[in-house]
Amino acid sequence: MAESDSRDSKTADAESRDKVSIIVFSGDMDKAFAAFNIATGAAASGMEVTMFFTFWGINMLKKTTGRRGASSFLGKMFDLLLPKGPAKLPISKMNMGGVGAALMRRQMAAKKVQPLSGFMELARELGVKIVACSMSMDVMEVPKEDLVGVDEFAGVAAFLKEAAESKITLFV
Amino acid sequence: MAESDSRDSKTADAESRDKVSIIVFSGDMDKAFAAFNIATGAAASGMEVTMFFTFWGINMLKKTTGRRGASSFLGKMFDLLLPKGPAKLPISKMNMGGVGAALMRRQMAAKKVQPLSGFMELARELGVKIVACSMSMDVMEVPKEDLVGVDEFAGVAAFLKEAAESKITLFV
Amino acid sequence: MAESDSRDSKTADAESRDKVSIIVFSGDMDKAFAAFNIATGAAASGMEVTMFFTFWGINMLKKTTGRRGASSFLGKMFDLLLPKGPAKLPISKMNMGGVGAALMRRQMAAKKVQPLSGFMELARELGVKIVACSMSMDVMEVPKEDLVGVDEFAGVAAFLKEAAESKITLFV
Repeated sequence: MAESDSRDSKTADAESRDKVSIIVFSGDMDKAFAAFNIATGAAASGMEVTMFFTFWGINMLKKTTGRRGASSFLGKMFDLLLPKGPAKLPISKMNMGGVGAALMRRQMAAKKVQPLSGFMELARELGVKIVACSMSMDVMEVPKEDLVGVDEFAGVAAFLKEAAESKITLFV
Repeated sequence: MAESDSRDSKTADAESRDKVSIIVFSGDMDKAFAAFNIATGAAASGMEVTMFFTFWGINMLKKTTGRRGASSFLGKMFDLLLPKGPAKLPISKMNMGGVGAALMRRQMAAKKVQPLSGFMELARELGVKIVACSMSMDVMEVPKEDLVGVDEFAGVAAFLKEAAESKITLFV
Repeated sequence: MAESDSRDSKTADAESRDKVSIIVFSGDMDKAFAAFNIATGAAASGMEVTMFFTFWGINMLKKTTGRRGASSFLGKMFDLLLPKGPAKLPISKMNMGGVGAALMRRQMAAKKVQPLSGFMELARELGVKIVACSMSMDVMEVPKEDLVGVDEFAGVAAFLKEAAESKITLFV
């Protein structure tokens, strides 16, 4: 069941490849890092990976420029206060107004670990499916045009279908 | 092994239905929302869902009125400081002393998303099994009478039995 | 596939025993508690358990004394600011500079729940496999000599292999 590494022939042996489903609820840099590390590791070893971004997890999919933004007062507040893109995420501990996150990014670079944006790029190259939660986008008033690199906009039902066929299911 | 749950016609196809097991450790409104969204989505599509509430997750099962309360000093502190029921939970980010949680609830209502209490009600109607962790209740001195809508009081062993038969296992 | 409960003949039927894989990302006492409670419960009921400690989860594996420490400025900061060992972890809510964590430990002791260190000891006795994430150790400049009770130092690929064979996979 786990013998295939054929990244290219995605459709052909979809049935026989091990699946991994990850819900990315968190908008923290360190947790996002863990999620993409697992996702790319799994995809590189031939597994079929789906990441379902919901709630704060939507933040890291946002474009950093040229956004359309929200219309209501609360939507504008979300737009103003929430980070846009992988380079702006806080860390879950010792963030210290962003200083901790900056230091962590620096330390990772010093240790030759690629940045979160690099991991996200790698995930796309390896065929990881990026799904954005449509309900979260509606609540936070994030239009599709404000996100980048999303393969599918869907609800929880779509995720559950993938997850029920997955060997590994995680909530990050 | 899991055939005794006859809420409706649950017994008939218990063996053949996909199972989902969710540990709700968090007491944050946004995470609870995600957990119940997944749980109700899964139950609505015919899966058999068990939610195991432990630690801060116990808070959302509490009655809002008529509580008996704890006896020891620390138990009284937990009773005083921890939120009671779904409408009182903080959010995990930007809670700002409850203002953030209130704004989030308001935005969800504006977007016609039902409140957490509605999702919890729906979960019960759909036959989601609500289990409260007995060890957490003991540590936090929460008597059974203070909780509402619980199907079973159990320890981690009971959860593991369900989880080992589940297609989807999540820690929220 | 799930019919064996033979704790003793660990090697003999390794293939047929249910597996549990837990990623311990969090460095919070309460979450660590939940993770070890699940791990020991599963191991006690005959399952094969692997815990993969990454990021802040590394903290609880640290020796409390005789550490070699890090070399770079940031490494020294991590060394200085992050807790060492299970007795020093904060709790995820109401930590209040450590007061909350201390009160929680006290309450658990009053309720005859063993401390986290006891659960960790029990996990080792029950044969739970403790894996430390080598990338996290590199980034945080934690040398192997500073950790205690680790069975294996490995990357995400090793975890994925175990997880793909597991009935229960959790991210804590």
